[in-house]
Amino acid sequence: MPYPETAEGFMIHDTKKWTEFKKDEFPLKPFGDRDIDIAIDCCGVCASDVHTINGGWGEAPVPICVGHEVIGKAIKVGKDVKTIKVGDRVGVGAQIGADLTCNQCKADQENYCPNMVDTYGSNWPDGTKTQGGYSSHIRSHEYFTFKIPDALESENAAPMLCAGLTVYSPLVRLGCGPGKKVAISGVGGLGHYAVLFAKALGAEVYVLSHSADKEKAVREMGADHFININEKDWHKPYNFTFDFILNTADAVHKFNLPNYFSTLKVNGTFHCVGFGDHPLPTLNAQDFAPNGNYLGASHIGNRPEMLAMLDLAAKQNIKSWIEKVPISEAGIAKAVQGVSDNKVRFRYVLTDFDKAFGKRS
Amino acid sequence: MPYPETAEGFMIHDTKKWTEFKKDEFPLKPFGDRDIDIAIDCCGVCASDVHTINGGWGEAPVPICVGHEVIGKAIKVGKDVKTIKVGDRVGVGAQIGADLTCNQCKADQENYCPNMVDTYGSNWPDGTKTQGGYSSHIRSHEYFTFKIPDALESENAAPMLCAGLTVYSPLVRLGCGPGKKVAISGVGGLGHYAVLFAKALGAEVYVLSHSADKEKAVREMGADHFININEKDWHKPYNFTFDFILNTADAVHKFNLPNYFSTLKVNGTFHCVGFGDHPLPTLNAQDFAPNGNYLGASHIGNRPEMLAMLDLAAKQNIKSWIEKVPISEAGIAKAVQGVSDNKVRFRYVLTDFDKAFGKRS
Repeated sequence: MPYPETAEGFMIHDTKKWTEFKKDEFPLKPFGDRDIDIAIDCCGVCASDVHTINGGWGEAPVPICVGHEVIGKAIKVGKDVKTIKVGDRVGVGAQIGADLTCNQCKADQENYCPNMVDTYGSNWPDGTKTQGGYSSHIRSHEYFTFKIPDALESENAAPMLCAGLTVYSPLVRLGCGPGKKVAISGVGGLGHYAVLFAKALGAEVYVLSHSADKEKAVREMGADHFININEKDWHKPYNFTFDFILNTADAVHKFNLPNYFSTLKVNGTFHCVGFGDHPLPTLNAQDFAPNGNYLGASHIGNRPEMLAMLDLAAKQNIKSWIEKVPISEAGIAKAVQGVSDNKVRFRYVLTDFDKAFGKRS
Repeated sequence: MPYPETAEGFMIHDTKKWTEFKKDEFPLKPFGDRDIDIAIDCCGVCASDVHTINGGWGEAPVPICVGHEVIGKAIKVGKDVKTIKVGDRVGVGAQIGADLTCNQCKADQENYCPNMVDTYGSNWPDGTKTQGGYSSHIRSHEYFTFKIPDALESENAAPMLCAGLTVYSPLVRLGCGPGKKVAISGVGGLGHYAVLFAKALGAEVYVLSHSADKEKAVREMGADHFININEKDWHKPYNFTFDFILNTADAVHKFNLPNYFSTLKVNGTFHCVGFGDHPLPTLNAQDFAPNGNYLGASHIGNRPEMLAMLDLAAKQNIKSWIEKVPISEAGIAKAVQGVSDNKVRFRYVLTDFDKAFGKRS
């Protein structure tokens, strides 16, 4: 059964063999009135993909096709779809469903809906497994499908759909803008977007990194200051300086958090979007008292934030720092290994889907 | 050397013998132009006093006289004092000094001044040790000395100066008011003020407590709801309900924090003002993701908040729930033991200072 009953994707069958991708067929959910079928053109490779396929975040529902930074062309739209038409270039991020009726959804907090559906590794209400974008097609719900502005190239826009939104949402919610001093901790896929968007939003941007070799790149991205956290007492000159720290590193378990907290303005926030496989360091409630600060996290962003981010990226001509990798079993294996080894600068985007899956539109 | 060179107080000489108070003399700092000498009439007994004298928060600078909820009469004022005159009834809380020149002080955040001086257990810039209010006199700086509104009885107002302010400040900073659902976790000295002030500020107040026998009292204080956290799955009916939780319990190490987090609205805050002797439970950054919430703490409050709190208490005729204990070696011993054993309902206030120290004004 080919499309429209199924799609084809590069799948993992065993989390112990997390670089062994095999091309396979998987079923698509029944087509709904607000659904959109997308013929995929490219897909970013997110650290979440790696944490999922290697079991770092817990056992995965194998066989699984990951990928949630999906761009392609709408080839079929349900009868109630109003915002997308056949032929539109569209994207899907890390969330593909929600009940759209709960208090969170009604308050534009659908990314906290208790019935949210993840783009892969989750289940649709009918029981069909969700499968991601390392594949030929994805069947998405209109609310989680976004028209891509003409000014943004597909490969440029793809990783914004998860990595970009994941940092853009807390940046705006924490008040990033002119007059604010914002520290970005860690410069990988997420962190590089945090620098780009924090700068685009008008803040003074400080980068906290242990990779001195990244300084040139992060300054090109727009960072105003580079702080090497390998230096002893790095935090001392920055006592009570930052409005907030957006932590994009997933190695928080190695951090001396009270040192970070000391650099926050009174009641400032240390906000995590990098989720590692290890618990946070041991903390006392008292550790938060000297600066009256907060620690927290967030989960992607909502639809209005996605639209605003894409609009900002188009208007300010924001360029993702990406490496293109033609999709294939070997290509994906190399990409996920590169993410795992922290070698990517700064995001892999899988391309050339027509070669792997044929022309689909 | 009697006053004005020294004061007399009930002091602890050994943290291993933390109920053995002995009446002793201690030196006062040199009198400054913005200083005020206070003949003390009463003093609240704070859990901080107990954590200090028993070494729970680290070794104390013995001999030490604790007490930082001090009310008395101004008997001498420096030549530059403008807000207090001799004869005024005044109070001193947990902070008695700051540099008043740093960025925090200039921004009304003097309670986060890196050069803050604690009312006891600290040092004045000249090296004199600060000693607290279980004593005949205290020499305070005008900025940390507050005129007590006529409508508030001294014993009623005393514990507001630390316990009251410690909860009032985060309540107002977190937006407590009409239309907000505020949960107060733990109902001891801090918690009972949190209920009283949250209600006075207009919020809908939920109390989270494992002490079913306190329900009647907390409802009398104004709580709208009482949630017994000993009940299995107590949190489930309150998914995404509270704007914030003000945690006043110091046993957070026994909490299942993700259960608490689940009851917060999106981006809500679990705010600690109870500081125990144990670390927080192990947490993952991911634990904050389902509700996008924050964890933090604060340290007392600032001068504008102190004045606003006393004004609110006077206008709304807020009554502290206190037990009066005439000050004496035995009386204080019983009080600190009662705090340690969680038997106090809800604050001890030491009284009858004229009997212990003679008439001083």
